[in-house]
Amino acid sequence: MLYVIGLGLSDEKDITVKGLEAVKASERIYLEAYTSILMVNKEKLEEFYEKPVVVADREMVESESDVILANAQNVNVSFLVVGDPFGATTHTDLVLRAKELGIEVKIIHNASIMNAIGACGLSLYNFGQTISMVWFLDNWRPDSWYPRVKENRDIGLHTLVLLDIKVKEQSLENMARGRKIYEPPRYMTVNTCLEQMLEIEEKRGENAYGPETLAIGCVRLGTATQQFVAGTMQQLLDCDFGEPLHSLVIIGRRMHLMEYDMVREWVPQENRGTFEEIYKRDYET
Amino acid sequence: MLYVIGLGLSDEKDITVKGLEAVKASERIYLEAYTSILMVNKEKLEEFYEKPVVVADREMVESESDVILANAQNVNVSFLVVGDPFGATTHTDLVLRAKELGIEVKIIHNASIMNAIGACGLSLYNFGQTISMVWFLDNWRPDSWYPRVKENRDIGLHTLVLLDIKVKEQSLENMARGRKIYEPPRYMTVNTCLEQMLEIEEKRGENAYGPETLAIGCVRLGTATQQFVAGTMQQLLDCDFGEPLHSLVIIGRRMHLMEYDMVREWVPQENRGTFEEIYKRDYET
Repeated sequence: MLYVIGLGLSDEKDITVKGLEAVKASERIYLEAYTSILMVNKEKLEEFYEKPVVVADREMVESESDVILANAQNVNVSFLVVGDPFGATTHTDLVLRAKELGIEVKIIHNASIMNAIGACGLSLYNFGQTISMVWFLDNWRPDSWYPRVKENRDIGLHTLVLLDIKVKEQSLENMARGRKIYEPPRYMTVNTCLEQMLEIEEKRGENAYGPETLAIGCVRLGTATQQFVAGTMQQLLDCDFGEPLHSLVIIGRRMHLMEYDMVREWVPQENRGTFEEIYKRDYET
Repeated sequence: MLYVIGLGLSDEKDITVKGLEAVKASERIYLEAYTSILMVNKEKLEEFYEKPVVVADREMVESESDVILANAQNVNVSFLVVGDPFGATTHTDLVLRAKELGIEVKIIHNASIMNAIGACGLSLYNFGQTISMVWFLDNWRPDSWYPRVKENRDIGLHTLVLLDIKVKEQSLENMARGRKIYEPPRYMTVNTCLEQMLEIEEKRGENAYGPETLAIGCVRLGTATQQFVAGTMQQLLDCDFGEPLHSLVIIGRRMHLMEYDMVREWVPQENRGTFEEIYKRDYET
C-alpha cells in the first residue's frame, strides 16, 4: 500500500490520527520537501514517528519514483506531503505509476493553504482561480498569470497568490559544470511578489489592479506565528512580514460587509482611514 | 481557551493529533452538526475521546453562544466542526463573541471539501467561485447562484456546487403550532441538484451550461466509500450515487489534458465515447 499523507501546515502534530497510524504501520517513509515546508525539520518528525524519514527531492520523486514504490505491493510505504495531497502541488505521476505497478493507493487528507486561507476573513466561496508567482530574472519576467488576476478582478473575486520557493537549486555555473552543489533555500516574500505584480501592471496597463488595490499579506498560515496584514498593495510593499512562508490575497471588489469587518482588523491603525476610504470608493458596499 | 477544531471529512480518526490533544484537555466539548456530517455518530466520537460530547444545533450556536462560551476564560472548551473551521460555513459570530468576552481562541485546521475536492482530478487552481444549492419549493425557486456559475463558465473555470442539508428542521405546520417536533434529516442528492440546475437554465436560457455540459458527481468525499462519476449533466441525472454527502462539480472549458486524463477515469465505459466527443468539441484541447 502507498499512503499519500497530508501533514497540514505547521508542525509534527498537525498530522491526523489516521495519518499517524499509517506512518507507524509503514516500512519506509518519504517526505516531499521541495514544494512547501513545515515549521519543523525532518529530525522532529523522526522523533515523533520513532522512525527514519527520507527526504525526497524533486529529482527523486520525478525520476526515481520506482525507488519510492519498491515492493509497495507487499509492504506499506508512506509519502508525506506538506498541506494536502491535492493542494497546490499534486503528485499525479507518482499515484498513476503506483497504479500501473498494481499498488493500492490511499490518500489521507489534511488542511492546505487552499482552505486554511479562509482564516484571513474572506469567504472561500468568493475566491476565483489561484495563481503562482515565480521569481523574475533579468531576462525572464513571465506574466501569464496577469490575465487570470484580471479575470478574477473583473467579476469581483478574490485571488490567492502562492509564492515561489527554491529548495536544492543549483546556480547556473554549478549546473553548467555538473557540480552537485546546491544554493541555500529561498522563499519569496510578499514584498517581492507585490513589486513584481506592480511592475507588470505598469507595463501592461490593463488595470487588473493597482497600487491602491486592497490586499492581505498572509504569512506562516496555520502556525503559532500566523500573521495577516491588510492594506493597499503600495502600503504592503514596505511591510516587514518576517519568516516564511508568505502568501498574498488580492481582494475582489465584491468583498461583502462581513468580510470587510474581519479584514479591517488586519489593517495597522495608521492605515485604517485609507482602507475605509478605498473600500467605500472602489468596492461594492 | 476556546478551541475551534476541524474534524476532517470522514470519521473519528480524521482529527489531527493537535486537535485530539485539545479535546482531551477540554472541560466541555460541543459538536456543530447542522451544516455537515461525519460518517460516524456522536457516540463513536465520545468513545474515541473518552469524554461526553454535546451536539450543538443551529439554535444553540446562534442564540445561546454564551452557554458554549461559559467560563472559557478559565477552562478549555472545544467546538468541533466537520471539515475545517473556515470551510464552507464559518463560525465568525462565535469567534467574535469569544473575543468580546476576553476568551482566547485557537483554530485547529483540517481538510474540508474546499480542498479535498482536488481528489476528483481537477486542479484546485482552476476553480472559480463556489455556490450552494438549496431545495426548491413550489413557490420558491431561487436562482441567485446562476450568474455566478455563468461567470465561472464564461472564463472557463470549474464550479464546485455544495448541496443543501436539512437537520432538525420543523415542518411548517409544527413550526406554526410551536411544536418542537423535527423532521428526519435530509441530504440533497446530485440528481436533485442537476434537475434544479437544468430547470433554471431552461428558464433563463443564458447558456451558462446545458444538458451536454461535462460534470462530476462527487460523493462521500474523503471517506472509504468515496466515489466520482463523470459525464454530461444529462447522463448524471439518472445515476445512483448512494448515501450522502453529495457534491457536484461543473467542469470549466479550460480543463487541461492532465485534468482530462484523470477525470475520464470516472466516466462509465458506455459513456466514454460521448465524453471524449464533447471534450473535443466544447473544451479547449
